[in-house]
Amino acid sequence: MSGISHPGEKRMVLVSGRAHPQLAEDVAEALGTEVLETETRTFANGELYARYSESVRGADAFVIQSHTDGINEWIMEQLIMVDALKRASAKRITVVMPCYPYARQDKKGRGREPISARLMADLFKTAGADRIMSVDLHASQIQGFFDGPVDHLFAMPVLMDYFKEKLGDDPNLTVVSPDMGRVRVADRWSDELGSPLAIIHKRRDPKVANQVSVHEIVGTVQGRTCLMVDDLIDTGGTIQKAAEALKANGAAKVVVAATHAVFSGPAKERLSCEAIDEVVVTDTLPVPEAKRFDTLTVLPIAPLLARAIHEVFEDGSVTSMFDGAA
Amino acid sequence: MSGISHPGEKRMVLVSGRAHPQLAEDVAEALGTEVLETETRTFANGELYARYSESVRGADAFVIQSHTDGINEWIMEQLIMVDALKRASAKRITVVMPCYPYARQDKKGRGREPISARLMADLFKTAGADRIMSVDLHASQIQGFFDGPVDHLFAMPVLMDYFKEKLGDDPNLTVVSPDMGRVRVADRWSDELGSPLAIIHKRRDPKVANQVSVHEIVGTVQGRTCLMVDDLIDTGGTIQKAAEALKANGAAKVVVAATHAVFSGPAKERLSCEAIDEVVVTDTLPVPEAKRFDTLTVLPIAPLLARAIHEVFEDGSVTSMFDGAA
Amino acid sequence: MSGISHPGEKRMVLVSGRAHPQLAEDVAEALGTEVLETETRTFANGELYARYSESVRGADAFVIQSHTDGINEWIMEQLIMVDALKRASAKRITVVMPCYPYARQDKKGRGREPISARLMADLFKTAGADRIMSVDLHASQIQGFFDGPVDHLFAMPVLMDYFKEKLGDDPNLTVVSPDMGRVRVADRWSDELGSPLAIIHKRRDPKVANQVSVHEIVGTVQGRTCLMVDDLIDTGGTIQKAAEALKANGAAKVVVAATHAVFSGPAKERLSCEAIDEVVVTDTLPVPEAKRFDTLTVLPIAPLLARAIHEVFEDGSVTSMFDGAA
Amino acid sequence: MSGISHPGEKRMVLVSGRAHPQLAEDVAEALGTEVLETETRTFANGELYARYSESVRGADAFVIQSHTDGINEWIMEQLIMVDALKRASAKRITVVMPCYPYARQDKKGRGREPISARLMADLFKTAGADRIMSVDLHASQIQGFFDGPVDHLFAMPVLMDYFKEKLGDDPNLTVVSPDMGRVRVADRWSDELGSPLAIIHKRRDPKVANQVSVHEIVGTVQGRTCLMVDDLIDTGGTIQKAAEALKANGAAKVVVAATHAVFSGPAKERLSCEAIDEVVVTDTLPVPEAKRFDTLTVLPIAPLLARAIHEVFEDGSVTSMFDGAA
Amino acid sequence: MSGISHPGEKRMVLVSGRAHPQLAEDVAEALGTEVLETETRTFANGELYARYSESVRGADAFVIQSHTDGINEWIMEQLIMVDALKRASAKRITVVMPCYPYARQDKKGRGREPISARLMADLFKTAGADRIMSVDLHASQIQGFFDGPVDHLFAMPVLMDYFKEKLGDDPNLTVVSPDMGRVRVADRWSDELGSPLAIIHKRRDPKVANQVSVHEIVGTVQGRTCLMVDDLIDTGGTIQKAAEALKANGAAKVVVAATHAVFSGPAKERLSCEAIDEVVVTDTLPVPEAKRFDTLTVLPIAPLLARAIHEVFEDGSVTSMFDGAA
Amino acid sequence: MSGISHPGEKRMVLVSGRAHPQLAEDVAEALGTEVLETETRTFANGELYARYSESVRGADAFVIQSHTDGINEWIMEQLIMVDALKRASAKRITVVMPCYPYARQDKKGRGREPISARLMADLFKTAGADRIMSVDLHASQIQGFFDGPVDHLFAMPVLMDYFKEKLGDDPNLTVVSPDMGRVRVADRWSDELGSPLAIIHKRRDPKVANQVSVHEIVGTVQGRTCLMVDDLIDTGGTIQKAAEALKANGAAKVVVAATHAVFSGPAKERLSCEAIDEVVVTDTLPVPEAKRFDTLTVLPIAPLLARAIHEVFEDGSVTSMFDGAA
Repeated sequence: MSGISHPGEKRMVLVSGRAHPQLAEDVAEALGTEVLETETRTFANGELYARYSESVRGADAFVIQSHTDGINEWIMEQLIMVDALKRASAKRITVVMPCYPYARQDKKGRGREPISARLMADLFKTAGADRIMSVDLHASQIQGFFDGPVDHLFAMPVLMDYFKEKLGDDPNLTVVSPDMGRVRVADRWSDELGSPLAIIHKRRDPKVANQVSVHEIVGTVQGRTCLMVDDLIDTGGTIQKAAEALKANGAAKVVVAATHAVFSGPAKERLSCEAIDEVVVTDTLPVPEAKRFDTLTVLPIAPLLARAIHEVFEDGSVTSMFDGAA
Repeated sequence: MSGISHPGEKRMVLVSGRAHPQLAEDVAEALGTEVLETETRTFANGELYARYSESVRGADAFVIQSHTDGINEWIMEQLIMVDALKRASAKRITVVMPCYPYARQDKKGRGREPISARLMADLFKTAGADRIMSVDLHASQIQGFFDGPVDHLFAMPVLMDYFKEKLGDDPNLTVVSPDMGRVRVADRWSDELGSPLAIIHKRRDPKVANQVSVHEIVGTVQGRTCLMVDDLIDTGGTIQKAAEALKANGAAKVVVAATHAVFSGPAKERLSCEAIDEVVVTDTLPVPEAKRFDTLTVLPIAPLLARAIHEVFEDGSVTSMFDGAA
Repeated sequence: MSGISHPGEKRMVLVSGRAHPQLAEDVAEALGTEVLETETRTFANGELYARYSESVRGADAFVIQSHTDGINEWIMEQLIMVDALKRASAKRITVVMPCYPYARQDKKGRGREPISARLMADLFKTAGADRIMSVDLHASQIQGFFDGPVDHLFAMPVLMDYFKEKLGDDPNLTVVSPDMGRVRVADRWSDELGSPLAIIHKRRDPKVANQVSVHEIVGTVQGRTCLMVDDLIDTGGTIQKAAEALKANGAAKVVVAATHAVFSGPAKERLSCEAIDEVVVTDTLPVPEAKRFDTLTVLPIAPLLARAIHEVFEDGSVTSMFDGAA
Repeated sequence: MSGISHPGEKRMVLVSGRAHPQLAEDVAEALGTEVLETETRTFANGELYARYSESVRGADAFVIQSHTDGINEWIMEQLIMVDALKRASAKRITVVMPCYPYARQDKKGRGREPISARLMADLFKTAGADRIMSVDLHASQIQGFFDGPVDHLFAMPVLMDYFKEKLGDDPNLTVVSPDMGRVRVADRWSDELGSPLAIIHKRRDPKVANQVSVHEIVGTVQGRTCLMVDDLIDTGGTIQKAAEALKANGAAKVVVAATHAVFSGPAKERLSCEAIDEVVVTDTLPVPEAKRFDTLTVLPIAPLLARAIHEVFEDGSVTSMFDGAA
Repeated sequence: MSGISHPGEKRMVLVSGRAHPQLAEDVAEALGTEVLETETRTFANGELYARYSESVRGADAFVIQSHTDGINEWIMEQLIMVDALKRASAKRITVVMPCYPYARQDKKGRGREPISARLMADLFKTAGADRIMSVDLHASQIQGFFDGPVDHLFAMPVLMDYFKEKLGDDPNLTVVSPDMGRVRVADRWSDELGSPLAIIHKRRDPKVANQVSVHEIVGTVQGRTCLMVDDLIDTGGTIQKAAEALKANGAAKVVVAATHAVFSGPAKERLSCEAIDEVVVTDTLPVPEAKRFDTLTVLPIAPLLARAIHEVFEDGSVTSMFDGAA
Repeated sequence: MSGISHPGEKRMVLVSGRAHPQLAEDVAEALGTEVLETETRTFANGELYARYSESVRGADAFVIQSHTDGINEWIMEQLIMVDALKRASAKRITVVMPCYPYARQDKKGRGREPISARLMADLFKTAGADRIMSVDLHASQIQGFFDGPVDHLFAMPVLMDYFKEKLGDDPNLTVVSPDMGRVRVADRWSDELGSPLAIIHKRRDPKVANQVSVHEIVGTVQGRTCLMVDDLIDTGGTIQKAAEALKANGAAKVVVAATHAVFSGPAKERLSCEAIDEVVVTDTLPVPEAKRFDTLTVLPIAPLLARAIHEVFEDGSVTSMFDGAA
């Protein structure tokens, strides 16, 4: 046969946006490599720029960005980084978004709304993404928004390990969903822990006119240790009100577990209120000192991401990381 | 200017697959027109065929199919009808699927599963669909699976009218979700009716080994009229067990409301059991005589579809049909 | 260079739908491997489901399905299997369809018809297929319907070997095309065997009014051994009438060769009629006992498929399997 | 409602490449309009240029080109014209290619060949074509190569009218296919005229070695008026040899009918040979004086194209132009 | 014909992002209509939201956004607005970006850079944009980045009118390009005004080592009124240094004209320096009071945009607005 | 794991169109391999054909064509070759076009023009091209026309080496741009050589009416060695007039350097005029004997292409070939 033949080789590279560089470095360390140096800049008029300092030709590239505060900047930076990888002949591009941006706008709640979560998937596809990796999507259906493979990781094992060690086999435990929309998450925890379930049901008070709502508790919480679970905590309003309702209804203790610590605006004040005994989150989003408080525990997500990236690069199995979950 | 100019004109046509022709005829009648005649055939080897007996050039075409039993046949027939419309120069093609097929496979529950609900959206897009119209999607996120406009209709007003007339302002009413996954639907009913909520929580019995589950009731049902709501009823197993648990817990009456009457296998027997006092559904799927029973009421969905088609064709507003819902 | 480097590796996997599992097993055996276990299911309402029991990440996957009776089910199952492979990060997906479905609807014979054969190509592309492999396409142009490589295999060598051994160098042989549409196939056989050609010409009888047709024989068949060839046999009607016309015109013997044994409805009765001395087909479609008859010979197609899959996986040459044909 | 509303209007424009401007003018005249002026140029290095001298914004544009000699120039010119229409905001673009270019490369006859006919469809789609209009495609399957509507016109009525008037109800007529590949065309003529069929079968002479072929006549031609039909005549070689074989076998008269007069190289000499009594074609391709000869009749195709364009623009029916054919 | 027919109607709507609402209102007023009310919001975590308060079904929608400071926010808002329009069934969506974002990253200046200007075109296409309208693209080639029609408007007539009135027929005028990259713009002005040209050539001083550059003036400026032209002014650094070099070389007066007033960072200080006598810009970007200075004149761009939108909606001619320019 | 596993292998093949076969052979030789044999043909009616004589399955294929005279033929041939590679299962296809065709139609200079340079990028993408490699694009923005990686090579090092050797460190050198549009190229040369710059400014003579233009020289050329640089020379008109203007203004010597020798029509006569002392080009386009003249030097481009192809195949770095340029 004419032409030139060689044994093939494959190379993995890790690049990172500027939103949460520590996370990428932690992942790189766990993988035994380094983050490939990238020259990223913001011009005077706010336009962003990225350039790789080393060839990425033929590489299996993973682009990590954490979609924290200034979220639209970080999305745009990651899109631009993907474009630069594509045009620099990377072989395969995996967008790592530990906390999927715009995940809560995953449907038209009313007419003439956008479906921004789908839009995100399409924007990254267009820029050149071949695959997406994310942790605890707000709705599992978001996997279906991307036209290609999505590695959906679960932080539950990370959080669960922490609680199992801490709470042991507490027979007094009740898993609580802070509202109707998060019942499925609570159900999974309840199932895993073998504990009963309670739900906070916010509804209009039929006795009072217009828009006043009561926090009704569906299920029993009197004297129980309440483990309230959610995928993300934004301003903390729902969580605080739910915790107060639980305590008002006799809960002995209220512990909160969530994957994504968005922590916007008054979150710190609300989460450190008296009604909440402890808050446990992961660092899919950076939690700067200024947002931390005494009763907060932040668990590292890098080991999980690193293991998943390893499996993807080595054509192993991400599914097997979660014992049958996916 | 050179060339030939004319005032424009627009024309709407309605075509129908063979799954539930009565529905299309009801819609046509409500619109004051007729279903355009289509020659549809199944060849000896099972291949399907469709041909329009009249020109559809330039038309705003609505293709109705009801994805009942033999569901893959009906999907394929509708795909082929869309292809034929596209190649016959229809101007715009709206796929009307009152009960979205494969809606329950809307995510990867485990690794290496398909996301068939997204696949459906893509298949119809590929065949030539410009828009989709559907009623009560299993998950609202499915709207985001289609790359184009989706008119998502709600049967709740249809069902609600029936119940408001029948139950009046029953202060004894409790809305019940038959399992964790359908809580959002129940929440919307509870909100609309101003009634409390209860939820059936199926979980592993911690006292017994392996796979035995108990139907725990979260909330109060003793002496109440329980209105159990769901988007669809398939074999009726979940509904029957939930009803029995409600009665066992002292419910005075159990009424079931659902949009899509899939009614597979033993559904009839289960739904006509003693624990259930009444079942109310719509005819998004055909309910043949053989599947009907004394305590079943079937409400017509054609008026809703006809009104929505009218709004779409006339560039009106589908949103306004539902007072702010979408 | 930063990042992690490795020698590359490639892995081939074979998965199969439920239409004709024996065929996939025969192929696997010929390749010296096994069919990867797949959990396939049909739900109560007819929806299909597939899940791979093992990782397919990075694999060169071949999905075999035989589009026999219940053809739309099998198409949908294969589409869903392709979707699951794509989302599970298979590297390349080859759809193996020994008998291409809807191949006969490969053009608009009249206005407002679909072109279902093109639609099939597009549906599989959309689901995630990178390549198609098929045997004896009804029209070679179907290769051009798929936007990507199509490996078009020929069963003629398989059938020819059988006939050459059986008939030897019979100087009395005439190749017959059963109708005008299949003349090209007959021409290729005539060329290969060095035998004369005859054609059955079905036309309206000019002496009788309306729709009555005569089977005119163009060419000489008196006293000849007639080898009637076709790509597929569906209900057998054309073949039987052609055979009777041949015998009525003095043919000594009528032998039939075809690649695809669709065998719908009355095929068995018709093909075992007196006018036909032997029928030879391959098992691109399963031929269950109930459809078999004494004068039928079924040749295995698995060796051909296995060899082609081997060439594709090994970057060899499929063309060279057919001495210059393609 | 906010915004500005108006009654809609539609406008049709006709533009033409430089290959056969007379055809476009004939079409325009038949439609009662004029060809929109286009500035087309060939630069010194062979690059082509086109610019419309008038706005085409919002227009329903038909781009006519005749793919004659210098075929790649004409394809490129038409592609560039489509691009300019798209960027100038034409609303809909119909590519009119009376004789589809590269139609004979419609499949891979051998491995590692292109499928240029599909490539053409894709190139025009990419440039911006919404629809294609063509006459007598070499293979009807080519309709399926384009991802959109194809108006497939038939010149048979045009040619048939001529012959019916000329030959009347000649009971002595036999329709002849010049080779195996064109049998379907001959079959349609035979059906329409109620005449018997004969076929020229070119095959290797079994008595002589290697590559020598004989023109065997399948069917009866002795003393008959032979009407030989084909979709196109290129160099005329096949036609001439077939005509000679017919005369050698006693044919009384040989008349040739074809839609597309490619007439390459020695076509004129061959077609004006003694064995051929008359040749009738249409002007889908220009037939310059230099290629004409005494026994040639050229029928105008413009009326057919004009009527089809009229039906397309007016949302009428092209199908109905051919009495049920499509 | 079956179905329902109507005369068609078309409706234009104007919507606006939050970057520069005054511009949209000015455009609406010039068109004699109002901006359609849109509910736009920024959530606590920075995610954006948009919802139209009125139906846009079937509308010809123009989405205006001015890509000023906070540029990535404004891009994302406009993308989300386009998504919402698409899903709300707008018929056609034109993205109006008076100053095209990321226009300066229109090529890879070095390896492994992005081409962000192309990325922008693709992102808007993906979100649902059918067309783009922009003023004075940094490079005309950007038109070719969008796969669809681009209406490229020129502010030169607006600026030119101002100068012609002000400077009259000044025989003492020289047009100056502030650097090599903007020579084409200066050339067009020089041509229009019939004035000579000068260019500032920044190059390394061959007499001094490393990175020191001199501003060499190519052409004559001694005693001349220098009209320095550019498409945009960002921080004003280049302009200030060029003006100083001109004055140092004896220029009598320095006037600056530019379309886009980016005015980042120290722009105000630099542009109000002594060397510059006057600066004239348009308001394609908002120029807030804080950025204004005594010698600045801001000309309104709304009339130009309004006229172009009118031509697009009415299927008129945008080209004709610029007498042969495009 | 089930399935069959192997170490991977990669193979590079080089194929060539018929425009400039010597170039491909030179590249192959530099790479130490051979051009893969291709059967290319032009049929009687001008249609082109290509077939590879050897398997290209799984190969990293580079298709070289030089877009010289008969440019549309060569484009079409290359498109067809790409299609054949795609359908023959090549793994990756790089289109090598040393002189990008239609590069000068890279924008709409006036309304209703095509953007043919973008069209080219899209046509090759559609045919199956994964990547493009080109030398000295007329505008760097053309990189952004292709949706994928573009390896943009620079001939400047090749030309510069020649001049540095020939002219040494001539302090008397001035770099000249022959018109306003090419100033950027001249700027880069001026920067690299540390020489001053002059520009030919063609403008309407204000003293004479209508369309008469003068060649004004911006900068100093009296007594200088003028090195006039351009990316391509077509008919040589601009260059000749510029040279004459330089000499008329006292230039001591005029040397011309350009990458692409289009050399259409009267180029030879013009370039060998007295005013031009030497012309240096590369052979990205073939320069046949008939177009050569005494003062012409043709430098080989094959070494540059070969090195770039090597880097691409080996996943090395093309960027590093140009010291930071890209």
